[in-house]
Amino acid sequence: MKKYIMLFALASACIGSQAQQALWGASQIVSPEIHPDHTVTFRLAAPKAVKVQVTGDFLPTQKVQTPFGEFDAPGAADLVEKDGVWEYTTPAPLSPELYSYTLLVDGLKINDPSNVHRIRDVQSVTDVFIIPGERADLYKINDVPHGTVSKVWYNSPTLGMDRRLTVYTPAGYETSGKRYPVFYLLHGMGGDENAWTELGRASQILDNLIAQGKAEPMIVVMTNGNADLQAAPGESNLGFAAPTLQLPKTMEGSFEQHFPEVVKFIDKNYRTIKAKKARAIAGLSMGGFHSMHISKQYPDMFDYVGLFSAAIMPDKKVKSPVYDDIEGKLKTQFDKKPALYWIAIGDKDFLYNANTEYRKMLDDNGYKYAYYETPDGHIWKNWRIYLTEFAPKLFKK
Amino acid sequence: MKKYIMLFALASACIGSQAQQALWGASQIVSPEIHPDHTVTFRLAAPKAVKVQVTGDFLPTQKVQTPFGEFDAPGAADLVEKDGVWEYTTPAPLSPELYSYTLLVDGLKINDPSNVHRIRDVQSVTDVFIIPGERADLYKINDVPHGTVSKVWYNSPTLGMDRRLTVYTPAGYETSGKRYPVFYLLHGMGGDENAWTELGRASQILDNLIAQGKAEPMIVVMTNGNADLQAAPGESNLGFAAPTLQLPKTMEGSFEQHFPEVVKFIDKNYRTIKAKKARAIAGLSMGGFHSMHISKQYPDMFDYVGLFSAAIMPDKKVKSPVYDDIEGKLKTQFDKKPALYWIAIGDKDFLYNANTEYRKMLDDNGYKYAYYETPDGHIWKNWRIYLTEFAPKLFKK
Repeated sequence: MKKYIMLFALASACIGSQAQQALWGASQIVSPEIHPDHTVTFRLAAPKAVKVQVTGDFLPTQKVQTPFGEFDAPGAADLVEKDGVWEYTTPAPLSPELYSYTLLVDGLKINDPSNVHRIRDVQSVTDVFIIPGERADLYKINDVPHGTVSKVWYNSPTLGMDRRLTVYTPAGYETSGKRYPVFYLLHGMGGDENAWTELGRASQILDNLIAQGKAEPMIVVMTNGNADLQAAPGESNLGFAAPTLQLPKTMEGSFEQHFPEVVKFIDKNYRTIKAKKARAIAGLSMGGFHSMHISKQYPDMFDYVGLFSAAIMPDKKVKSPVYDDIEGKLKTQFDKKPALYWIAIGDKDFLYNANTEYRKMLDDNGYKYAYYETPDGHIWKNWRIYLTEFAPKLFKK
Repeated sequence: MKKYIMLFALASACIGSQAQQALWGASQIVSPEIHPDHTVTFRLAAPKAVKVQVTGDFLPTQKVQTPFGEFDAPGAADLVEKDGVWEYTTPAPLSPELYSYTLLVDGLKINDPSNVHRIRDVQSVTDVFIIPGERADLYKINDVPHGTVSKVWYNSPTLGMDRRLTVYTPAGYETSGKRYPVFYLLHGMGGDENAWTELGRASQILDNLIAQGKAEPMIVVMTNGNADLQAAPGESNLGFAAPTLQLPKTMEGSFEQHFPEVVKFIDKNYRTIKAKKARAIAGLSMGGFHSMHISKQYPDMFDYVGLFSAAIMPDKKVKSPVYDDIEGKLKTQFDKKPALYWIAIGDKDFLYNANTEYRKMLDDNGYKYAYYETPDGHIWKNWRIYLTEFAPKLFKK
């Protein structure tokens, strides 16, 4: 039977001599290895390689020159070879955080063959690991009650297609019989309806905050903000096409205009509290732009608004009724006194100045908002932090 | 605003000089490129590499010697370099199918950096693509009504933990008010609750068969058959740990014994038809073993049973009440005349003889079953075919 099981396993392993060798008892490379002191070792078996590096957001950034000016890129560190296995250990412990990295083998960017945990962000697939502790414990799957994460399709008459969204329902939703408030959570440019549950760790963050009694049980709805697409790459009628940045219909009003169709669908299909006081909308970057314009376009829909590293103003050349009379619509929205209008940004974000100008305009008009500033730039680390800060403020009235 | 959007995009791209270069207008490698005649070109930019190969299930298999005997491994084809870009085009069109592949760069197995569509199977991550047409059109996302795919947690008192499963509810479930039959669909050794919706294409197959009127609308429940684990790698309290084959508690009775807890949970949380005639169970390989033993252990639970390339008999050393008196339990099960007992296997499957013996035993006892044989071995291609054949036979009475 032992042999039987082994053959079984071999057959299941299906492809790849490496996996098979592992099953035959050859030593397997462990990478990344997170040591008890939170230093991390990266390894790669590549006897024929000449130079191997690791690049990732745990390393200090380096300046690179681009046609659009200087840009902060992730740094790189050299691995050292011994007996065909390349290795690098961080010189100091890493802080608690979810980190992304890739390897560079003679200039070729590859994923770590020893780490199956990878997340796609726009056009890049990176390997990930978590250093636990502090706020990063909210990003982990802990032994607390878990909500349900569903991929659901709705029809949009405005956009003329069926579209996919991600719905988080809190633990106990299925059998409680209760009605719940709804938090609409939007992604940035190049993202999709998967982004917030992958690098964003939204379901883990909500599970943990709700279990700790810090956030109210709520439904979280994560839409796809690319108005000309049905769904994330690989999840639509385009099949396994390469992802693009989807610029054509992202910040030109279509998504904002169709948004009431999403709210209507959710109110029809889930046990929601159908009231402004029980609806929040927030998003990162382009999603912050969408949240700002949707919430002012439909001033009776959302009582809680979050702009995470948000783009603010539309391109002046773009014509859409959504972007007409922005000042008048903001006045209407703020005259109705939203329960919370929350602006967050990193001090190195390239949208920092645009947000400062926007806050000045709000101040000049006496519109009330809360402001939260963090170090660093336009990165997922900040967006996860903003979600952990924003969610506990919702629906407490 | 153009520059603004570009910076925006750059920031979103986050990591990886390659993605950024693509955004700055550098030409991007397309791989795989599926040509109109269904030949396929694979490409890799690796100017410093000495030898680049592609290996995958679209190539003829090659014999490899292992400590356990001769084994069919996927073949490999050489890419040819020109100006730093390596390329290989299949000499002939590929048949309609979902294919998996990886690249070998100087012996190092890597995923194709130009293809973000990858699926993990046990310990290997492979790139995937689909050649459309014929049965493979059932594996595509077509413009038909789509069901909902949910990741749901249930509590198992028997196994002492919260556990994750995947639930497919057919299009219209949320608002129809109707009750539905339930199909329990189990994975193989090293798999998990994600396997059938990833390489298995279960939600696409069900969406398409239901839309074509070939299968009844049904709920499909995909469990995790590793009784000592909560969930798939990266989705449990183990965090981003490396996957293993999970041998300790897979074929020793625990999973089978706890199974009524799954049925009870589904019947409580979903609008199901709570009757034997409205329940099916099937699985591939180890999941076929589980399906056989669960269905005979609880002979009033399932009217439809599918064994896809199934392991049949337990290790004689394993002691579990589930494996006591197998013949007597089979007699009880078949005396109750299941609506369908369906056995499928490939003619090159290493479990072929075990299935032949099992069929002989059923024949000798006059137990009725249906049999479906395909070419090839113990591979996902066959399991997808079996699902497309089995699902239309369910709940038609």
